[in-house]
Amino acid sequence: MLGRVLCTVLLVGALPSPAAASQGHISVILLGATGDLAKKYLWQGLFQLYMDQVSSGHSFTFHGAALAAQEEGQRLMFDVLKKLSCPPDEPPNRCAVLKDQFLKLSQYHQLKTAENYTALNREIETLLGQEGLKEAGRIFYFSVPPFAYTEIAQHISSSCRPPAGAWLRVVLEKPFGHDLESAQQLAAQLAGFFREEEMYRVDHYLGKQAVAHILPFRDQNRRFLDPIWNRHHVERVEVVLKETVDAKGRTSFYEQYGVIRDVLQNHLTEALMFLIMELPANVSSAQEVLQHKLQALQSLWGLDRSSAVLGQYQAYDSQVQEELQEARGRVSTTPTFAGVLIHSDSPRWEGIPFLLTSGKALDERVGYARVLFRNRAYCPQSGSLRDAGHSQCKPKQIIFYFGHGALGTPAVLVSRNLFQPAMPKDSWKEAEARSDLHILEQPLSDFYMYSPVKERDAYSVLISNIYHGRKDFFITTENLLASWAFWTPLLDSTSRQPPRLYPGGVENQQLLDFEMVSGGLAFTLAEPAELLSPSRHMPSDFRAIQSKFRQSPLVSAWAEDLISQLASDMEQAALSSVARSGHFHLALSGGSSPVGLFQRLARHHYSFPWQHTHVWLVDERCVPLTDGESNFQGLHRHLLQHVRVPYLNIHPMPVHLNQRLCVEEDGGAQLYAQDIVALVANASFDLVLLGVGTDGHTASLFPRSETGLEGAPGVVLTESPVKPHQRMSLSLPLINRARQVFVLVLGKGKHDITTLLSRVGHEPSKWPISGVSPSSGQLVWYVDYEALLG
Amino acid sequence: MLGRVLCTVLLVGALPSPAAASQGHISVILLGATGDLAKKYLWQGLFQLYMDQVSSGHSFTFHGAALAAQEEGQRLMFDVLKKLSCPPDEPPNRCAVLKDQFLKLSQYHQLKTAENYTALNREIETLLGQEGLKEAGRIFYFSVPPFAYTEIAQHISSSCRPPAGAWLRVVLEKPFGHDLESAQQLAAQLAGFFREEEMYRVDHYLGKQAVAHILPFRDQNRRFLDPIWNRHHVERVEVVLKETVDAKGRTSFYEQYGVIRDVLQNHLTEALMFLIMELPANVSSAQEVLQHKLQALQSLWGLDRSSAVLGQYQAYDSQVQEELQEARGRVSTTPTFAGVLIHSDSPRWEGIPFLLTSGKALDERVGYARVLFRNRAYCPQSGSLRDAGHSQCKPKQIIFYFGHGALGTPAVLVSRNLFQPAMPKDSWKEAEARSDLHILEQPLSDFYMYSPVKERDAYSVLISNIYHGRKDFFITTENLLASWAFWTPLLDSTSRQPPRLYPGGVENQQLLDFEMVSGGLAFTLAEPAELLSPSRHMPSDFRAIQSKFRQSPLVSAWAEDLISQLASDMEQAALSSVARSGHFHLALSGGSSPVGLFQRLARHHYSFPWQHTHVWLVDERCVPLTDGESNFQGLHRHLLQHVRVPYLNIHPMPVHLNQRLCVEEDGGAQLYAQDIVALVANASFDLVLLGVGTDGHTASLFPRSETGLEGAPGVVLTESPVKPHQRMSLSLPLINRARQVFVLVLGKGKHDITTLLSRVGHEPSKWPISGVSPSSGQLVWYVDYEALLG
Repeated sequence: MLGRVLCTVLLVGALPSPAAASQGHISVILLGATGDLAKKYLWQGLFQLYMDQVSSGHSFTFHGAALAAQEEGQRLMFDVLKKLSCPPDEPPNRCAVLKDQFLKLSQYHQLKTAENYTALNREIETLLGQEGLKEAGRIFYFSVPPFAYTEIAQHISSSCRPPAGAWLRVVLEKPFGHDLESAQQLAAQLAGFFREEEMYRVDHYLGKQAVAHILPFRDQNRRFLDPIWNRHHVERVEVVLKETVDAKGRTSFYEQYGVIRDVLQNHLTEALMFLIMELPANVSSAQEVLQHKLQALQSLWGLDRSSAVLGQYQAYDSQVQEELQEARGRVSTTPTFAGVLIHSDSPRWEGIPFLLTSGKALDERVGYARVLFRNRAYCPQSGSLRDAGHSQCKPKQIIFYFGHGALGTPAVLVSRNLFQPAMPKDSWKEAEARSDLHILEQPLSDFYMYSPVKERDAYSVLISNIYHGRKDFFITTENLLASWAFWTPLLDSTSRQPPRLYPGGVENQQLLDFEMVSGGLAFTLAEPAELLSPSRHMPSDFRAIQSKFRQSPLVSAWAEDLISQLASDMEQAALSSVARSGHFHLALSGGSSPVGLFQRLARHHYSFPWQHTHVWLVDERCVPLTDGESNFQGLHRHLLQHVRVPYLNIHPMPVHLNQRLCVEEDGGAQLYAQDIVALVANASFDLVLLGVGTDGHTASLFPRSETGLEGAPGVVLTESPVKPHQRMSLSLPLINRARQVFVLVLGKGKHDITTLLSRVGHEPSKWPISGVSPSSGQLVWYVDYEALLG
Repeated sequence: MLGRVLCTVLLVGALPSPAAASQGHISVILLGATGDLAKKYLWQGLFQLYMDQVSSGHSFTFHGAALAAQEEGQRLMFDVLKKLSCPPDEPPNRCAVLKDQFLKLSQYHQLKTAENYTALNREIETLLGQEGLKEAGRIFYFSVPPFAYTEIAQHISSSCRPPAGAWLRVVLEKPFGHDLESAQQLAAQLAGFFREEEMYRVDHYLGKQAVAHILPFRDQNRRFLDPIWNRHHVERVEVVLKETVDAKGRTSFYEQYGVIRDVLQNHLTEALMFLIMELPANVSSAQEVLQHKLQALQSLWGLDRSSAVLGQYQAYDSQVQEELQEARGRVSTTPTFAGVLIHSDSPRWEGIPFLLTSGKALDERVGYARVLFRNRAYCPQSGSLRDAGHSQCKPKQIIFYFGHGALGTPAVLVSRNLFQPAMPKDSWKEAEARSDLHILEQPLSDFYMYSPVKERDAYSVLISNIYHGRKDFFITTENLLASWAFWTPLLDSTSRQPPRLYPGGVENQQLLDFEMVSGGLAFTLAEPAELLSPSRHMPSDFRAIQSKFRQSPLVSAWAEDLISQLASDMEQAALSSVARSGHFHLALSGGSSPVGLFQRLARHHYSFPWQHTHVWLVDERCVPLTDGESNFQGLHRHLLQHVRVPYLNIHPMPVHLNQRLCVEEDGGAQLYAQDIVALVANASFDLVLLGVGTDGHTASLFPRSETGLEGAPGVVLTESPVKPHQRMSLSLPLINRARQVFVLVLGKGKHDITTLLSRVGHEPSKWPISGVSPSSGQLVWYVDYEALLG
């Protein structure tokens, strides 16, 4: 009862009297109050909050909680609290008094059973009642392992909600899942207990002063940045966290996560979003900030295996063996180094590389986010004959320096040949130019440099923002899931990939240097054993099997390699066709299978002769072309809007005529057939790309219907067994006039039909795809391993 | 008769005997044989030709010609010939013998009158007859001022053509005109006398070894260059010629030409073309090379005033005053320094800046063409902790070094982190790395460097190529006119512009530094007098008058400024509209006036919200949309293909239905009206851009026809007085529903109608434009000074 006595005694002295307490009382409950994070940062952050807000009109109590019994927990907790330090900028007397008060306002609670939570709630209510205090809100800080989340959440939600009119804020620490699916599960569980606005998911990078200042900097320097913050002026964006430490002692955690989940998916992605998101008109509107950040995340191109280079320091595997006592022979492929190339689809950033890099056991500890600008200048006078001045021909960059490294403090640096930034004088001060220091290979004297007036720990910044209800300093559920949706495909596609081994420390030398190569990343140097081979100019990742399927050539590989191969083959076909006839008539199918192909063509095949390509549709759903279900929309979104096909070479199917859809009398199918006859020599497409449905349909030619299977080559209206039922399709005879037909089959779901097709003959009325047999052209099957082998 | 005797005597000794002379005889006639160029380069080049080809099977005679009388000319000429030097790589004995023979094969002719030419022809014929030699061909080298060309050409063509079976080659020296018109005239005159294949126009830069090796280098290193010689890897291309000398003593010439005509239009453009042209499959096919070079020239975006920065060294004007004895008060605006930004439309180079720079009175004498590559790498290890090696993070470039400067010789340099190039060992040798030297700010040791095995003068290279009939080393008429067509608009638009004055030499410091700013160039520093003003971040070049015209706002300026202003106003309208309603419905007119506007929008307005813009046509000609006359084609070519308007937001007029044009029954006009009603709220376009015809028509609404002037808002078929007669047009009532209507009127040709319109009232049936009066929108007139003031 000591805690309680202390508390009551103190409330009289330190809390405002009820009459003045117009802002109400805030109870902070720190779960995991004696854990590492709490010891190291959270109590100090809460103490800072108290020092900052003691005169705000709010009153406070601080409740440490853990599983330990009351006496032991209390002792452990107060051992921590006694060591709280006074910040250098705080007058020592004031701090000593406040620390004393803080200790008195703090108490320990064992929170283990449902009854413990009910008791806590009752204590808070009783206390407030006794003191005549209105309750403003409660903060529950979850500094506990994620497996404990659900149970605690349930207890809080059922027993510890504050009364109406007061808010609840629960603060959650990562990890928030380890891929999209697990994150969705966790989010769904939490959503059963808390409303979105009640949850504060912490990414402590958002509290780092240099990261937290990115948006204010962009806002306060709009005048300078507006003209240059775009793909025309920016060369690239880098977000980097280099560590010298390795994972020793933490491999049981690290083995499950690896560098991408540990650092890139959260910290570096968040910092990148602050750099690339559209700047809201009002950066202090959390809602606008969060919405723009989400849009930025959603604008990113999907990642695939070629988007990343992965490494693992050499000692890691033996550390894992030792710490986890794994059976010898199992080799860890967990990456401890990653470089990832990210692109955005937004008009502002199209084509500009964003590079995220992090690793353990590197040469130095440093973190930064920087924007490098292109050199837009030409300086006629040769360098040796110029004044030192701030030439426009020198490199230009803006660096948000998280800390450590050469500077040792957080900083914002702007090249002097860019502009002198506006910085808030109360929180950032201009630092002296130390010309002896170099920062990212440039002398520090080339920069305007600012460092924080008060250096503040990230957690103390975040705790202050929880107090202020600034949701934009935290990760919303939408944001979290969008981030996992972005990262999960890369995690999946690289999970089997052995990372490059590196010695660690300065001995890494150039071994981890990487380059952007045809839309992806690759290490610059070959693996040490291959250093002498000149292969890096001719990367060849394909492991495609060449064989036969239904008497026609078969190309098979894992989906990603298969799509690469198909895209290359299509480019080859296009180039030959243009060389032969001056144009390339390409008929494309809709649906989900070709999306990856379209993206690959748009992003990796710069030499594709789009200017001379005519794009036709193999089939279309009878919906307006603006409808999300339209095949044309998908084709436009994933391919056409990214490449330069002349407007008149694009041929959507006329499913929408006279303001109605696919009405026989409107003659849309005939119209399309006429266009084909008018433009395509001999109505023979140069290449038709087809897919196969699980029922054996292809194009929009369905089993158990004769429409379009025989007769004159043409375009037909058909009925699909699934919605939308009405379709327009090239007929089988028209498809069979093509010079080349490629059929793309992807995924386990197609294994049964693939197996079936390998056995049956020509029976188009049962399986329309079996009728594809170009009369004087070539048919090639592209079937991935999952479809082929199940 | 001494020359003749010598000649006869010598032929016996030095020419192959008739039996062996299977290759035939070549007569070289050098017109201007005692002039500066001949003295300095041409005779030496001819002597080199003789040394190289004496054993080729051809026999030679060399005929110097000038206006001077026989004896005087002969003396002057032989004074030059006696001083011919032996190249260092030639054995002195052989050279001495050959020089002796060369002198004996050379003779002087006075060529002044028609008789002189007839006599020359007779002498050649007689000589060949006497010696029993078959004639292979004649080379006439015009080293004379261009005003003399026509007369000489006439004489040669009428009196000196070789007999059938032998070729004629006439070699012409620049200048070839001083703008497109004069170049066309000169070309037309010459075409009256010579066939295209007979003319060899010299640009001596094509004979410079480093320039002449650009194509062979690209050919021999295709393996390395193919993947990187494109906009994805190249950062920029620079072609630079810096001189330390000024124009003193040559101002009478220089005043007429200036740096752009003297250096950029010819030398630098030619070097640039070799870098950017598509590489022919066979680089030794002159025809392919010339064709690809022409295509490259034609792919360049048009220049306007903002494409260049111009300077003049301070002493120039007083040198002009002194040498030309001009009246005081006339100030020369001839530029002696220019930087020009060039863009190409080709898919390979789209968006990549090409910078041409040249000037007199600069800090050093040097010339080079270089391709700078982007940094595509990321190097995790910090620079100070890396081996010196050839990091991928260092700059990457390929330099064709013309000569002078730090190296003092021609050279080809390739950054060691790119690749080791294949170089022909017989003509280029690898040079030692001199780590003390820097080249364009990089240590020489960073490069693979090659220099010529034999350094050869450009003229000697060219004379050899004339002999070999290599037309690709010369400027064809097509090439010349394409180059003038490209440069003339810039010359015209800058002719009134005062250049920036610079002190000359190393004192220029940063005064001539320039930058790419919103699609054009601007000096980085303000004029010295304005150095303290911060205006460079807010360039404002507009000198637009704001006033009233027909009771509506009038904006007037010189055409280029007017278009800039209009484009900005349109972007502003688009941004407001998108902010207000989420989209921007823009109806555009065809014709030639808006072409400059379309180009400006495509190239300078990166923030235009194209993704949310719907583009409609104000009117259309009844021709297929693929026809060059179609308004849509022009719109597509100049605007739509360069910006990202979603496919379904583009609305060409349906003039072509059921395979026929604008037939009333096909209902195209109604179809378009329906589309407008369906998509444009209230059928009120956000902005309609109109023009005015000299007859007062606007859109395709013509005088003396009531169609489309009254009634319900809609789309109509109309008749134009000029071909193609049939048109489709928005009606006046539909136009008048728009929120904003901008009318653009450009050029002297529109002065009369502008004057008329300023006086008349609302009489749409006489002048349809006078009926434009948005019922609840705004009308703004954009009229250039020429249309307004005549």
